[in-house]
Amino acid sequence: MNHTPLGKCTWLIPDCYLPEHSDPDAPYVSHESVCVLNAGDADAHLELTFYFEDAEPSRAQAECPARRTRHIRLDALETDAGPLRRSVPYAALVRSDVPVVVQYSRLDASHPSVTLMTSIAYPI
Amino acid sequence: MNHTPLGKCTWLIPDCYLPEHSDPDAPYVSHESVCVLNAGDADAHLELTFYFEDAEPSRAQAECPARRTRHIRLDALETDAGPLRRSVPYAALVRSDVPVVVQYSRLDASHPSVTLMTSIAYPI
Amino acid sequence: MNHTPLGKCTWLIPDCYLPEHSDPDAPYVSHESVCVLNAGDADAHLELTFYFEDAEPSRAQAECPARRTRHIRLDALETDAGPLRRSVPYAALVRSDVPVVVQYSRLDASHPSVTLMTSIAYPI
Amino acid sequence: MNHTPLGKCTWLIPDCYLPEHSDPDAPYVSHESVCVLNAGDADAHLELTFYFEDAEPSRAQAECPARRTRHIRLDALETDAGPLRRSVPYAALVRSDVPVVVQYSRLDASHPSVTLMTSIAYPI
Repeated sequence: MNHTPLGKCTWLIPDCYLPEHSDPDAPYVSHESVCVLNAGDADAHLELTFYFEDAEPSRAQAECPARRTRHIRLDALETDAGPLRRSVPYAALVRSDVPVVVQYSRLDASHPSVTLMTSIAYPI
Repeated sequence: MNHTPLGKCTWLIPDCYLPEHSDPDAPYVSHESVCVLNAGDADAHLELTFYFEDAEPSRAQAECPARRTRHIRLDALETDAGPLRRSVPYAALVRSDVPVVVQYSRLDASHPSVTLMTSIAYPI
Repeated sequence: MNHTPLGKCTWLIPDCYLPEHSDPDAPYVSHESVCVLNAGDADAHLELTFYFEDAEPSRAQAECPARRTRHIRLDALETDAGPLRRSVPYAALVRSDVPVVVQYSRLDASHPSVTLMTSIAYPI
Repeated sequence: MNHTPLGKCTWLIPDCYLPEHSDPDAPYVSHESVCVLNAGDADAHLELTFYFEDAEPSRAQAECPARRTRHIRLDALETDAGPLRRSVPYAALVRSDVPVVVQYSRLDASHPSVTLMTSIAYPI
């Protein structure tokens, strides 16, 4: 099998937002995921930078092994400024040392009927 | 830290629509956001142009400071033709004087269970 | 004002589907829109081609005037094979004689709590 | 008619997830679709590769005839490792022997009010 690395090393996501609440009757808890696909044969070391409306950027590290996907839960991530704040607009930049593909998804469970949104991130 | 400007200076969003109503039992009010990520070291000055089915375009200004995100709420924006009309199809063009990345999201709260949609805008 | 045409002349949308039903308690009826933004100074003449799983393609015409948007409702469109069938997978190709930008959105109102999805179409 | 093949031969989808449950009162069952549009005059032979967080990739085959769309239901697909597991993050790579366009959509029917999300896949 040919496991050429596929994608780009830099990806941007302007619209991030972690809802404050999750309804106890919802089938999921509110969360955001930065989903990484590493189709190549080398592990990917990722640096995530988070941008805010009212503060300097913060950072976090993650990995996505070779021939694996990793769905990074932003509600569980520890940044150099602590956990990400909820109910504030923010944005994300993902840098990888090998080519990967990145997709962002949000599930809002503020109401028992959850709602989903997704987009492939913007590559550079 | 290297804060190279990332992205493009022109972004288009064909599907804008501000819902008329928000259900009083919904966890949010209906709104649209033009989310801008400015990863560079220079402030971004933005011109938004809005296109309609039945009228000439209108315009508005906004800013996104260096190393910040700005989630521009279209329901709160003042254009040179006043606030954006609700319940009519429209579209948006965003021009920036420095490279940025733009994502469009809509939350429709016409029903207590809100629904979300999002897409990275189209860059030129 | 400079009204350079912005975008591409060919756009593809693989995932189209017109839901059969709309709940009478929903705030909208189920529908799909092909949203066109024509930022230029020449009217856009559009040919839409629809692809199916079990039949040859059908076609329809539409227009988007200069400096206007047009949100084409697929549930209201007359093709050369009649109205589009509901509850079957289909796909769409949009060709324009001048550059435009195209976004596809679906609202499913099968349940009183509607759900939205959207994506910028794929440009060529 | 000119049926030039349109699109690319390689498409990636980082965020796949098959929900475990479907509410009996929902208008649909939970599912994911890989939607392929083949606008050309040659049949497309597709190889789908699925990536996981905790296992080596698995594979499946599919076809999309000339001038047709095919909405591949991932909940019904047989891979070389059996049906896709539910309630685990995974990702997909689609390779075609002729140019096509690929869009990914998910419908989550865990609650009676279903929610949709979609994105054009990432092309290479």
